[in-house]
Amino acid sequence: MAFKFATRMKNIKASTIREVLKLTERPEVISFGGGMPAEEFFPIDEMKEVTLKVLEEDGQKALQYGPTDGYRPLREKVVERLGRIGIKGITADNVLFTSGSQQGLDFSAKVFIDPGDVVICERPSYLGAINAFKAYECKFVDIPMDDEGMLMDQLEDALKTHPNVKFIYVIPDFQNPTGKSWSTERRKQLVELANKYNTVIVEDNPYYELRYSGEPKPAVKSFDTEDRVVFLGTFSKTFAPGLRIGWVCAGSEILNKYNLIKQGADLQVNSLTQRQINKYMELYDLDSRIKDLIEVYRRRREVMVQQMKKCFPEEVKINIADGGLFLWVEFPEHINTTELMPKVLEKNVAYIPGAPFYPNGGGENTARFSFSAMPEEKIIEGITRMGEALKELL
Amino acid sequence: MAFKFATRMKNIKASTIREVLKLTERPEVISFGGGMPAEEFFPIDEMKEVTLKVLEEDGQKALQYGPTDGYRPLREKVVERLGRIGIKGITADNVLFTSGSQQGLDFSAKVFIDPGDVVICERPSYLGAINAFKAYECKFVDIPMDDEGMLMDQLEDALKTHPNVKFIYVIPDFQNPTGKSWSTERRKQLVELANKYNTVIVEDNPYYELRYSGEPKPAVKSFDTEDRVVFLGTFSKTFAPGLRIGWVCAGSEILNKYNLIKQGADLQVNSLTQRQINKYMELYDLDSRIKDLIEVYRRRREVMVQQMKKCFPEEVKINIADGGLFLWVEFPEHINTTELMPKVLEKNVAYIPGAPFYPNGGGENTARFSFSAMPEEKIIEGITRMGEALKELL
Repeated sequence: MAFKFATRMKNIKASTIREVLKLTERPEVISFGGGMPAEEFFPIDEMKEVTLKVLEEDGQKALQYGPTDGYRPLREKVVERLGRIGIKGITADNVLFTSGSQQGLDFSAKVFIDPGDVVICERPSYLGAINAFKAYECKFVDIPMDDEGMLMDQLEDALKTHPNVKFIYVIPDFQNPTGKSWSTERRKQLVELANKYNTVIVEDNPYYELRYSGEPKPAVKSFDTEDRVVFLGTFSKTFAPGLRIGWVCAGSEILNKYNLIKQGADLQVNSLTQRQINKYMELYDLDSRIKDLIEVYRRRREVMVQQMKKCFPEEVKINIADGGLFLWVEFPEHINTTELMPKVLEKNVAYIPGAPFYPNGGGENTARFSFSAMPEEKIIEGITRMGEALKELL
Repeated sequence: MAFKFATRMKNIKASTIREVLKLTERPEVISFGGGMPAEEFFPIDEMKEVTLKVLEEDGQKALQYGPTDGYRPLREKVVERLGRIGIKGITADNVLFTSGSQQGLDFSAKVFIDPGDVVICERPSYLGAINAFKAYECKFVDIPMDDEGMLMDQLEDALKTHPNVKFIYVIPDFQNPTGKSWSTERRKQLVELANKYNTVIVEDNPYYELRYSGEPKPAVKSFDTEDRVVFLGTFSKTFAPGLRIGWVCAGSEILNKYNLIKQGADLQVNSLTQRQINKYMELYDLDSRIKDLIEVYRRRREVMVQQMKKCFPEEVKINIADGGLFLWVEFPEHINTTELMPKVLEKNVAYIPGAPFYPNGGGENTARFSFSAMPEEKIIEGITRMGEALKELL
């Protein structure tokens, strides 16, 4: 007898990234798959130090249930950091911790989406977000981008045409997967359109502190005058993703809803982890750590770009991001990167095919390569093998 | 302009427990509210030790992304422990870690419930589960209990009458809030009815290892011959709730769905925390820790019962649980415990009114008292003050 699952389960497929992650657990595989930070630079000794201190000074509270919105001193530190990208006029009460920013994505759909509602997103967009939203049975209207962000006339058309748009989902800095960044002007226009059509913006911004070239931009939320931008941030890329601490920053009307959802979903994030990160930020300099990471990632990006230019056919277009963890590669039209994947895996190399980043289809000739997790010699070796696979195919 | 939230948000109210938790942050309040473990017995020194060891031996993996289902050595330890309550024929592949068992409740609804579907539950039932399920717009059919569990004839009537029952939700050991435990015979009958009507059972069992009197019972899942029982467990009550590690144990068809949901919801639980608990179980004796907790809680339960008998009017019925963290109290019909609450809070005492545990209304004269978190002298003091409030009212 078959079990009767909810209708939403028909929409939910395994995350390509998570499935590639499984394949790449074999140590011989050179993986450009998941957006994994360089683990050789994790602050392991510092974590020992801060854990001892937290358990010594505040051990009982660190192991006990705590408030749903989270540990206040750490929320205050998040507020300070958000101020640097122009998000002003907020307090710790505007911040709620989530289990990574992935949970912020899930909650965004849960707070806003009824079946059949529309999410507007960039084309292509982050597949982890697409999968999270699909569980709430939404439709996607994906808007093409140029080098400054979404095309505003097409966005406005979509807002006019679809009265049930619940939010516009954007990754304005080093977009996942294309690496594109929105111009300051386009960010302002986005907020103006959201105001005009009374919709919400979900600004997913996990990478903005990892910039290797170009000038920093103010957050989309910095232009928010009507509390309609929900900002999702995370310590995953700047500190450590295994700790699962992200946050939602929003005005009180909206954030109260996220708080109610958090209560039912899992009560709160880990009490100890919040204190560990907070203590780290008190005892050490997170900015100096990020500066070091930027040097490492900038070099790895450069090595990957150079090796791709050397080993990939000339027709291949490499999109170089100013920051973040990924290069986005467009192969000639006749190359299907999903079909290519097993051939490349035979050579013990992995990447993420681009198609799952297109919620309404397309992008079969694209792929995402992460340069963050592999040391330079492995990047060279992996891209060389990838180039061989391409030559065999062409 | 009002924001357009999802329809489900109309169903979601703040958790009474979480709200009382906020009120009781003032140190002068004697709280019998949340089911909080006694924090003076948290294994703080042991946590220092195991954290150093984990970071020393496996620091990179402890801070990196990991598999969605969780850290295998800890899943294997969960399998061993579940074997002790008769759950056999499972492996680590049948276990998925969740952010506390609260997340297992949320996922259960997400996997099975379409709007209008029916959840059958005990009357009364755990309010955190009711709130989690309500977010998926289900209806509740609540079945009365006697001292052996749900009344089976009423359960069968409900299964006959409602073709869209998606699962039966039960807390078979020291039920939250009533403290009742299901008899072995009734557990078998429950599984037989689920087989007959092809429905799923969600067995929520956070307290079974905390038994103070009576004989241990096999899990409902131990009688499962068709992989239709989903077992939810947690380290919150036996180890530390702030660490947010619970688990789902189920057959592969159902567990695969939970795994997909976990990917979209928040990818995975904390990599470090899983290793901390695992290392603790390797270096220390969790059973001996639980044995010590049982001694503490048994005494606290006894002190609370005796003081209630002394200070509460004779008509008050005190239900004494064989385990868990709560006493369930039935006051005379004319006492409304929600209205009584502010008067008791004035005396700096808190409990949880019973009404929110009744998904379809009722129980206004009932209340739940947790005896786990307060030392004996505070239990005596708090119940004495509560008795005074009652006398003023009567």
